[in-house]
Amino acid sequence: MSQLTIKSLAGKLGLSTSTVSKALKDSHEISADTKKKVQEMARELGYVPNPYASSLRGRKSKTIAVVLPEVANSFFSLSIKGIEAVAQEKGYHVLISLTNESYEKEREILKAFLSGRVDGILISISQETVQGDHITEMIEHGIPVVFFDRVLPDLQAARITTNDYESSYQATQHLVNCGCRQINFLAIPESLAISQERMAGYKQALSDNNIPFKASDIVSCNNDNDKDYDIVHQLLQREQRPDGILASVEKLTTAIYEAARSLQLSIPGQLKVICFSNLPTAPILNPSLTTVTQPAFEMGQAAATLLLKRLEKRNINIDQEHMVIPSTLVVRASTGTTSTMP
Amino acid sequence: MSQLTIKSLAGKLGLSTSTVSKALKDSHEISADTKKKVQEMARELGYVPNPYASSLRGRKSKTIAVVLPEVANSFFSLSIKGIEAVAQEKGYHVLISLTNESYEKEREILKAFLSGRVDGILISISQETVQGDHITEMIEHGIPVVFFDRVLPDLQAARITTNDYESSYQATQHLVNCGCRQINFLAIPESLAISQERMAGYKQALSDNNIPFKASDIVSCNNDNDKDYDIVHQLLQREQRPDGILASVEKLTTAIYEAARSLQLSIPGQLKVICFSNLPTAPILNPSLTTVTQPAFEMGQAAATLLLKRLEKRNINIDQEHMVIPSTLVVRASTGTTSTMP
Repeated sequence: MSQLTIKSLAGKLGLSTSTVSKALKDSHEISADTKKKVQEMARELGYVPNPYASSLRGRKSKTIAVVLPEVANSFFSLSIKGIEAVAQEKGYHVLISLTNESYEKEREILKAFLSGRVDGILISISQETVQGDHITEMIEHGIPVVFFDRVLPDLQAARITTNDYESSYQATQHLVNCGCRQINFLAIPESLAISQERMAGYKQALSDNNIPFKASDIVSCNNDNDKDYDIVHQLLQREQRPDGILASVEKLTTAIYEAARSLQLSIPGQLKVICFSNLPTAPILNPSLTTVTQPAFEMGQAAATLLLKRLEKRNINIDQEHMVIPSTLVVRASTGTTSTMP
Repeated sequence: MSQLTIKSLAGKLGLSTSTVSKALKDSHEISADTKKKVQEMARELGYVPNPYASSLRGRKSKTIAVVLPEVANSFFSLSIKGIEAVAQEKGYHVLISLTNESYEKEREILKAFLSGRVDGILISISQETVQGDHITEMIEHGIPVVFFDRVLPDLQAARITTNDYESSYQATQHLVNCGCRQINFLAIPESLAISQERMAGYKQALSDNNIPFKASDIVSCNNDNDKDYDIVHQLLQREQRPDGILASVEKLTTAIYEAARSLQLSIPGQLKVICFSNLPTAPILNPSLTTVTQPAFEMGQAAATLLLKRLEKRNINIDQEHMVIPSTLVVRASTGTTSTMP
């Protein structure tokens, strides 16, 4: 079952593969004469286009992929709503694939998309991802990629982020203004650019307030909810017990509240808490939670809009588009002055 | 660019298309002689298999689809974790597509999968879906389907559900035991089988406790969070004000708590609340929320296990497999006896 390829067709015609490919797609870049010659030869030799590749190159799948770590996180589920709103309007399907924070999985997922399932990719990288060859490969194969939230800063590609440095600085300053002097930062793995930005904003705010910083002030948490609880529980029993916590990941909220409760520490009386979070229940927590609220819906919307613009107009370059949509500090009772816990 | 199809190949050979198809796939059902004849003729005529169809029939995509209404709901995000755990172990990719509760969208999504992207489908239907021709079409095209949670009871297909009737009965009985006499049921659209089961369990518990039921005791909510708040706010100002609420959908929690707070009704003092919910923040709400906790992870796991079993062994029939995994009533402060609200 041998198959005549564009390459062999080009060889027989003495033309470049790119010319043959464009001629077969009736491109306006190719003269009518050449097109006729190529198409006749293709018919004669029984050339059958590879449907995967054709769908890929002709952008016929009308499908975009969203590759992200997980959906059990209101930032990601909200950004998906923003993406879906744009895709729906433009008649695109959306396929969501989860990396579960694994670099290996992320590579496998992108590799599978090379077979032509999707026209373009929106990606928020895994915690383990520190280099982007697998992403560059997509772009080189003509599948445009737009990063959102978790980006690889050194890779030349379009990206939509929020102001992680500034919002982390602002949140830390708010804790200082509320009287905190021992402020701990609960981090997701440090390799991610957003973590580094948030840590830098936190450190700068400490420094600007003449509060000394020690490496042990940053506490790393992982993906296991039970371990998170233990880590926070230990932190709250340190000799230098925190009077403020800035948590960089939403799911730590329950661990912090439950550890504080088990140690009979009142929030906000003895411990003030701010979390990077889009939790819809933040206002009804006990006490209600002060959050750095990210523009999740808007970021998804902006990323999808940019990708679809690129898919509709092949000749534009979006690699230089770096949009930053600011987050908002929403002050609630967890950084207040009165204790509302029983 | 004409393409030699299996049909034309079968015509030339005087064989059925099914025999030719099986011979090309080296099936044990076809004699060695026939296979040789078919394969030689295919080679001679330059037959090129359609990769989409081949991937479909040969189950080479190693990909399953998960079609569900949304991910901004902890039931669905947790069930995805269960599905991913099984797929990961067996080396399958998972593609997630969201219907956003639209029947039209659900149909379009399945139609797109007919082109051979996926080997099998796990589905939890949209609120609007009342008939399943689009699902039957998949099964007829050899793409097995397993329902989870939201099923079409009249369609003959494998399904994993929870005990909605019993858990709703149990939750209502708990409210009665806590002293409630005016218990309202907040429903998602009534067409869904899970809604009907939950309403039936609620009504039966009222009846068994000699509490009269009125149609107005069931209040329908929709997908708009702002409207949900208004609906609950109005409900809490009725002449016959509820002293108990059983909410059948997690996202109503914030609306109920905020409406009660704005009307200065204490939970659980004046209003007891139970919600069908897998919210990780349920224990840290003000007050902590009594939930009907569904076995979301386990349901996803069971649905994926069943689908992959069917994909690995083509000759088994799973249509009759109806597994029910029970939910758990987790009693917390929102149905307690003391008020914890400030």
